[in-house]
Order: sequence, then C-alpha cells, then structure tokens
Amino acid sequence: MGKNNAFLPLIEKYFERDPVAAAHVLEAMSSSDAVEVLKTIPLSMTAQALRHVNDAFAAVLLQKMPRALFVRIANTLEVRQAANIFLQFPEDLRREFLELLEEKKKRQVQDLLIYPRDSAGQIMTVDFVAFHGDLKVKEAIQKIRYLAQHDSKASYIYVIDKEGRLIGILRMRDLLLTDGNTLLESIMHRDVFSVDCFMDREHVANELSKRNYFAVPVVDHEHILLGVIRAEQLIADVQEEAVEDIQKMFGASGDERAFSPVTFSLRTRLPWLHVNLMTAFLAAWVVSLFEDIIARITVLAVFLPVVAGQGGNAGAQSLAVVMRGIVMREIPPSRGKQLILKETFIGFINGLVIGVVTAAIALLWQGKPFLGLVVGLGMFVNLTIAGFAGALIPLTMKAVGLDPAQCSNIILTTVTDVMGFLSFLGFAVLFRGYLM
Amino acid sequence: MGKNNAFLPLIEKYFERDPVAAAHVLEAMSSSDAVEVLKTIPLSMTAQALRHVNDAFAAVLLQKMPRALFVRIANTLEVRQAANIFLQFPEDLRREFLELLEEKKKRQVQDLLIYPRDSAGQIMTVDFVAFHGDLKVKEAIQKIRYLAQHDSKASYIYVIDKEGRLIGILRMRDLLLTDGNTLLESIMHRDVFSVDCFMDREHVANELSKRNYFAVPVVDHEHILLGVIRAEQLIADVQEEAVEDIQKMFGASGDERAFSPVTFSLRTRLPWLHVNLMTAFLAAWVVSLFEDIIARITVLAVFLPVVAGQGGNAGAQSLAVVMRGIVMREIPPSRGKQLILKETFIGFINGLVIGVVTAAIALLWQGKPFLGLVVGLGMFVNLTIAGFAGALIPLTMKAVGLDPAQCSNIILTTVTDVMGFLSFLGFAVLFRGYLM
Repeated sequence: MGKNNAFLPLIEKYFERDPVAAAHVLEAMSSSDAVEVLKTIPLSMTAQALRHVNDAFAAVLLQKMPRALFVRIANTLEVRQAANIFLQFPEDLRREFLELLEEKKKRQVQDLLIYPRDSAGQIMTVDFVAFHGDLKVKEAIQKIRYLAQHDSKASYIYVIDKEGRLIGILRMRDLLLTDGNTLLESIMHRDVFSVDCFMDREHVANELSKRNYFAVPVVDHEHILLGVIRAEQLIADVQEEAVEDIQKMFGASGDERAFSPVTFSLRTRLPWLHVNLMTAFLAAWVVSLFEDIIARITVLAVFLPVVAGQGGNAGAQSLAVVMRGIVMREIPPSRGKQLILKETFIGFINGLVIGVVTAAIALLWQGKPFLGLVVGLGMFVNLTIAGFAGALIPLTMKAVGLDPAQCSNIILTTVTDVMGFLSFLGFAVLFRGYLM
Repeated sequence: MGKNNAFLPLIEKYFERDPVAAAHVLEAMSSSDAVEVLKTIPLSMTAQALRHVNDAFAAVLLQKMPRALFVRIANTLEVRQAANIFLQFPEDLRREFLELLEEKKKRQVQDLLIYPRDSAGQIMTVDFVAFHGDLKVKEAIQKIRYLAQHDSKASYIYVIDKEGRLIGILRMRDLLLTDGNTLLESIMHRDVFSVDCFMDREHVANELSKRNYFAVPVVDHEHILLGVIRAEQLIADVQEEAVEDIQKMFGASGDERAFSPVTFSLRTRLPWLHVNLMTAFLAAWVVSLFEDIIARITVLAVFLPVVAGQGGNAGAQSLAVVMRGIVMREIPPSRGKQLILKETFIGFINGLVIGVVTAAIALLWQGKPFLGLVVGLGMFVNLTIAGFAGALIPLTMKAVGLDPAQCSNIILTTVTDVMGFLSFLGFAVLFRGYLM
C-alpha cells in the first residue's frame, strides 16, 4: 500500500462521506488488503468503517491486525458490536482478546457475553433513554436535548422506578403534546410490552413484528430495565437464523460463513460427514442383504439410485415445508398431528403418480413388465414413507427440545434410503419368479 | 357454535383485551371452527383479530366466509394487509374478490398489487406523515396532535416539495428542540436515504439493517414520495424469504405453507418430482453402462448408495454455506471465484479423509483390499466434485439472473450421483483384474 499514499486524502474523503459504501468496498477486498487499508486511514475512520462491515469479516480483520492497533480499534467499537465480533472469534482467542480491552469496555462486553447465544440479553443495546416518573416533561426535554448531541438512536422514552424497574413508556410525540410542568408518570403508558432477557431472538422478532413495534425493552426477572432491542437490529438476525437452518439440515455448522477459514469448515463439517457415512453404510448393509437376487437380476442395481434419490427429494420437500412452518411459528402444537397426516397423504398421492410413471419408464426401457411393477411399488411405498418422515422428524425433534434443523436431512435420507431399498428389493424377492 | 352463545361476552372481552393472543388461538383452530368464531363476534373485533393472524391463514378464512361477511371484513382491513391477503388467493379468485371491495379500497389495493412481488412498492405502507417545507414547527406540531388521535404509527416526518418530491426528513425530536416559528425546511435533514419502489425487499432489509434506520421512505423514479417501509414489517418478510429458499432448493414452491391445501402442494411439488425422476434416470443410465461388471462383482451394487449419498450430502453442505452467503449479501462478485476454489479445496480434503475411512470400512467389512481402494478413490473424486459443484451451481444461477435457490439441490444431486457412479464404477473397471 506504501506507493498509494498519494491517494490517502481521497480514501479518507470516501470513508467520511459514505462509510456504508466504503465498508462494502472493504468487504470485497481480501482480508490482508483490507487490513492494510485500515492500518493506513485515521483511527476514527477505521472504527466508522468497521461499524458497517459484517461481524464475521470484522472478526477476521481484527485477528490479522497488529495487537496495538487491535486494542485501539476494539476500544472504539460500540459495545454490542464488539460483543458480536468477539463471538466470532475461536473460544481461546476470545479470552485473550478480551484481556486487551480497557477495564470498562471489557466489563460491558463480558456482560453481554454471559447471556445465552441468540437471547434477548445478548442482542440488546444499552443505548436507551430512561427517566424517573417524577421528572417534569420540560426537564425530560432538556435532558433529551443534551442526549441529541450524542446522536442517540433512542425513539421511545422508558420510565423506571427508584429500583430501576420498568413502569411506563412514552413516545417523543407524547412530550411534544404536553404541558412542560406535567410529571412523566401522569402521562406515561403503563401497559408496557417487554421481553425477558433470556427470550430467544426469534421469539422476540416474532413478537415485535406481530405487534408492530419498532423497539422493545428487555427486562430481567425482577422487571429491571436492562436494554432495548430495535426492530432493524433483528432483521439481519432472523434472516441469518433462517439461513443457518439450511446449513444445519445438512450438517454444516450454523456458525460457518462463506469466507470462514478452511480449517473451521473442515472441523465442523467432517464429523457430520462421518455420521452420514455411517448411515450410508446402514443403507448399504440393507442392499447387501439382497446380494443374491442382485447377482441373479443385475438390472435391479440400476434402479437403486432412482428409488433412493426420488424418496430423498420428496421427503425433503415435506421437511422444508414443515421447517418453514416451525420457523415462522405457523404450526400450533395442537395441529402437528394433522400436518403429519397431511404430508403422509401428499406422499401417498405423489407415490401413486410417480410410481406409475416410474413403472412405465422402467417397462419401456427394459421391456420387463414385472420389473416395472416392482420399481413402481417400491417407489409408491418409499414416497409415502418419505412424506410421513419428512413431517415427523422435525416435529418430533422440536417436541423433545432439540433443534429441528440440526442434521434433519441426514436423518431423513437415512430413512428414505433404508425404506426405499427394503421395499424395492423386498418386492423384487416377492416377484422374483416373474423377474427372471 | 350456537350453544356457546353464553360465552360470547367472555370471548369478546378476550379479543378486546389481547387481540394478539386471541389471534394465536384462532390460528390453532381448524379453519372452519375459526370462521364460526369470526361469524359470531362483532365485526370490529373480527377485523382486529385478523390483523394479527398470518396472511395465509387469513386468506383461507376469508375464502370460507359468506360473501356478505367477506365484503364487510375486507373493507375494514388495512390496505397493505388486504393486498397481502389477496396475494395469497389463487389468481382467479383474486380478481373476483377484488370486485367485491368498495371503490376506494379496491383502487388502493390494486395500486399495491401492481408492484412486482416482494418489491418495496408492494410492501410499503401509505401511513406516513409528510409536510411542505414552508410549514412552521408549531403548525406541524398541531397537525401531528390531530394525527395522534388516529394512532398513526409514523415516527419520522417527511418534507416534500410542491410536486410531492421528497426533499428532507425530521425526527419528532427535532420538532421538540426547536422554536415554534422556525420553518421545517430550515431544520430538516436534506440528506435523506430513500429506496426505489422497485427495489427488492431483501435489498431494502439489507440497507435498513446496515444503516440502522427503523424506517425508510419509498420513492418513484421522479423522487416522488409514495410510502414508507418500517423495519418491523420487514422482519417477517426476510425471515419468510430465507425459509422459502429451503423449499425452493428441493423443488417445493416458495408459496407453499404448512397448511396450504393438499391440491396446491401436489400441483407445485409433482412437476419438480418429475424433473428429479428424469435426473435419477440419468444416474440410473450411468449405472446401466456398468451392468456387466456389476453382474460379475455384485458387491459393487452395495456401495452405490454410499458413494452417491455421501457426495450428495457433502455437496449440500457447500451449497448451504454459499446460499447463506448469497442471502446475507456476504459474497462480493469479485470473490465468487475464490469461494468456488475454497469449496473445491474443502471437498478435496473431505474427500481424502472420508475416502480413507470408507476404504478402511469396506476392507474390514468385505475383506477385499482392492474393493476398498476403488470405493475410496470414487469417494475422493466425488467429494471434490461435490464441493466444486455445491459452490458453482448457486453462484452461476445468480450470475445469469436466476434464483440461486430454485431446485439447486436437485441439480446438485444429479451432478454428485452421475459423477459418483462414473468415478466409482470407472475405477472398478480399471481395477477389475484385482477385484474378482
């Protein structure tokens, strides 16, 4: 970068004028180039730019920086972002980096890190405005005027009692419309919707979006006001949580990002590939039970991938629709059974249609009517089971408190492979007299 | 429900006190029971409850209602929700139901329906506050006081010129802190961030969450202010879009809900199952090319599902991580190639590890060293290709303007099945002398 120093004023101008666009440019660079840029520009701009870079990339950049620069930048970050970035570090580095922070910052970041992953407490911001109820409206306005200079994002005003318990809420507009000598407690809305600091972020998002609030206060079990969650913070969160489900269904870690280090990808994916391998051998073992008949009627081997692949995909359709319903909270517990029945019925009809089509193709291709019948029957049974399993697996996992996404597709394909081979090769044994 | 009329006052009380909870209870009922309840309670409560029911279920309920009741309820719905519910109707019913609305409501709903699906124009609300720049602060406050009685959700105040073009923005707080005789145009912020009415909602969500705004104005190409999108509206939208991707990957329609009618599920899933069937037969055809060697070495058939299943799952891990990166906009176009290389490398290493493990298991199970070698080599080649294809497929689909989710897993498993069988059985032919 040394030779580019003449461009420095230009770069600075850009970071100053449009930090969001500048952050996008940074994200498009390799991490070592991006670190070079951040080393060159003034510290205030670095912090500004990092605010708009996604947390995973910011974590990579911070890890690559000289320790001295890391310390200076990390101490300028907003507490919540610092905590989020720290969560992206490997466990051991997290502790080491935390020690580098200033005492106050360290404590604040630690406070956020103690809440469970994805809980309200972990994602809340502590940037909120809370006044006592005996404050006059004009005093409140004066305080807000002071805060306004600090560009606070606060939109609601929370009213707390002497112990810090949340007792009321006011909008800026309420202050606007009231005489200055009125006490806050006499105009505040007492019916405040708040969430517990341990509530899951998906649940918080759901409440916020159903109730049409753009921010919600977070309280502990004693109703003490701890922080605030704003709707726009949740957008990226819930989107992320939903796409993480796709990863988990196939046994990739929900934490993996497109540009995570290769070692992270390998460490998190390989264990699930081993699990999948074991289940694949289970399916192989089922096939091995039928080696005799395959030896005599080799063409059966040709249809193995058709029955298995089709069952896997039909089941995955059911799985995906049910997963969607779970994530969007569209499935009340009382209707779970109905949904399993519905998916089984869809599997039954899909099985009839695809079974007939498969039988017809097999007949036309191989010219053996009973081969067509065996493939068709195997397909029919497998697709019915696929619909049933595709709904049963995630609903059961959820009912027993497991994450319904976690490796659900691995479990599903095990079921469809095993049941597909069993039924297809089973029918082949049944009709073996007609097949040879 | 007739015999329950004594409970009516209780039910009414519940709907009045907590419409959100009441809506949840409705969603848990069968649709015909829910319709009975809605027929019984007063109209104002029906509209109130429907506001909190998810749009898909609301659409089902409205379709099941007597036409007269439908008309009365539909006309009390907020315009945006009415438009969203109408989008859930089948195309033909949409037109029929639209005709039932009052002229003004019909026009407003139609206006929202002309915007492309999932565009800013389609999801914006027209409930916003806009004043001309030459208004005095005290006049603005007076107007807001009037609007406050109508419980408007507006949080920002937009400033427009005579032609309705957006020229500035003010927060309630800005009015609070300024002398009443000041003109709005002298205190407004002129640097307004706005989005075009044709911008995709995922893009809007991304901008809003990056910039930390809780609402954004929507303008047309002449910069005329059309509406506003609030962050909390987007929460459910982006979450939905992300989970719809899971469905599309397996060839289920993004529109399908857990409780969509069975006919809808069948109509949208069966075509993709047929596509999948054709690709499965392509894989079967590859196997059929090797029928001779399978006839002589039957045990090869036993390992077919292991090679195919493992390749499919490893490829799906790559696909899921890349899909996540695309949805979260974490992959700048310039880094696409790097990502494909990275996933191929991960596939290479996974292939080495899983190849060795598979070879060892095959050897222990069947006692044939060269069978182990052939399975291991086939696995290694297939997992390397799986990593490559898992990244290449969605990135290519995106680059050519297709939806990267649409049936991407069906394409991927075709690649991993075909390449898996080709390499595994190809190696078997190569080493056939040692296998028998």
